[in-house]
Amino acid sequence: MNSNLPIGIFDSGVGGLTVYRALHEQLPDEKFIYLGDTARVPYGTKSLATVERYAVENARFLAAHGVKLLVVACNTMSALALPTIRTSVAVPVVGVIEPGAQAAARASKEQHLGVIATEATVQSGAYRRAIKEVAPQAEVLERACPLFVALTEEGWAETDVARTVATEYLKDLRGRVDTLVLGCTHYPILRRVIQETIGADVRLIDSGAATACAVEELLERENLRRRSFDTHTGQLLKERARARRLCDDLDHFYVTDAAERFARVAERFLGSAPSRLEAVEVWGQDELQSTS
Amino acid sequence: MNSNLPIGIFDSGVGGLTVYRALHEQLPDEKFIYLGDTARVPYGTKSLATVERYAVENARFLAAHGVKLLVVACNTMSALALPTIRTSVAVPVVGVIEPGAQAAARASKEQHLGVIATEATVQSGAYRRAIKEVAPQAEVLERACPLFVALTEEGWAETDVARTVATEYLKDLRGRVDTLVLGCTHYPILRRVIQETIGADVRLIDSGAATACAVEELLERENLRRRSFDTHTGQLLKERARARRLCDDLDHFYVTDAAERFARVAERFLGSAPSRLEAVEVWGQDELQSTS
Repeated sequence: MNSNLPIGIFDSGVGGLTVYRALHEQLPDEKFIYLGDTARVPYGTKSLATVERYAVENARFLAAHGVKLLVVACNTMSALALPTIRTSVAVPVVGVIEPGAQAAARASKEQHLGVIATEATVQSGAYRRAIKEVAPQAEVLERACPLFVALTEEGWAETDVARTVATEYLKDLRGRVDTLVLGCTHYPILRRVIQETIGADVRLIDSGAATACAVEELLERENLRRRSFDTHTGQLLKERARARRLCDDLDHFYVTDAAERFARVAERFLGSAPSRLEAVEVWGQDELQSTS
Repeated sequence: MNSNLPIGIFDSGVGGLTVYRALHEQLPDEKFIYLGDTARVPYGTKSLATVERYAVENARFLAAHGVKLLVVACNTMSALALPTIRTSVAVPVVGVIEPGAQAAARASKEQHLGVIATEATVQSGAYRRAIKEVAPQAEVLERACPLFVALTEEGWAETDVARTVATEYLKDLRGRVDTLVLGCTHYPILRRVIQETIGADVRLIDSGAATACAVEELLERENLRRRSFDTHTGQLLKERARARRLCDDLDHFYVTDAAERFARVAERFLGSAPSRLEAVEVWGQDELQSTS
């Protein structure tokens, strides 16, 4: 495996950009290819079979572009389709559930954990299972918060509307958890309002940030970190010589629809829009072989 | 054309059920087939090309099942894809935009009209054009209200959250319109909160209800109304003899995904869940011919 290949990240839409940001901060030497399946977003209200089918199409699209590792940034896909994705491509695949669950179990003092996520993720019970695996005694309360996604995409993260919605969603968790997993990629955008609402003493766990740490460990273990120096000349790689920015032209973004809207929301989420953004089709890739 | 064939209704998801309800009330003798493309909902944030492709697949699916007329219950599809749908099937096709626009123009005394809808519908300018066609002097203010959909599906239509969101969305329309078009099939579920927020003196126009009237006129004109009596025996048709209920077994519902969730939201919207509900695939129908 060529360690200079980019890392592939895919999501049902724009939410995975918070995972891209976390990876970018943790691994500034790496290049990234991001795929947002904006033609078929959201996955959080879809069935298992449909999520699996779409997830495999996304994974194969990125694998065919040559990546050394795939990050399933979407919680719903990680919860429902990780085993299926792993059998469909030849590169290592990292989801967001296990890193998030493990970070939460480590952070929780009293093992009273909360998880907020999409309907599909909550129904799957994936976070509960992953937490129980490392902390069998833990109590886990889960709550689906479907309006949070629309709120963040509307740019209403810091409004009274967001506070009212958060108060409603979190009322049964407040006072009953010491740690809360943000189990949907959109939720870190609402971090401030969620923290205010659930209480300042509750630890918030961003699954995306936990995943970035897991990816770093895996790259180290597999000797797959991108080299910052040219081993022949000892020179800094050209792009390393300048400071990396989010969304600069080393990172390539693909969407399956509505690129303009993606760029607009990306700007809202990251402070800058992708300089390389393309609309593509990912369906009907069944004949393609995954690359390794 | 056999006037005893059912009327086909299609929507991107569950919202079109408000149009089904309006048609059912207006035309209690008719049978209906409803298709909700729940695997690919929402359309309101998708591009023109994608909405057209999905709309044609939906239309052909219903046409192949034998219908005498197609109602495009989805505002986004009606706004973006009506001409394309019309060329793809051999039966008459009625959208929700023109009936809604015409009813609004007739209702407005001062020709100060507002339209609330999805992002895609607002961007298309379809309501504005359709209103200007019948009332060239009219002033039209438009506002996309994406959170309204999530609010209704969450069952929060009559909550403080809904009131807060409506206040934010409608603040630039309040006092400036005498008539407001509910240009998204979900919005009639929020009718009470919208009316309170925009003011009791503003006329609300439900495009679905206006469309039911347009369908009735078309059926009369084309002599396509379903006969309530058997012309040979003079007897009432068997199913006519009992009172028709919403969602009874004369009406058939198809969804492309997550039938269970559809049934749950249908119950919230209509007060009863469909007795005949099936999950189907509508894509890859290109080889099918439309029926007439």
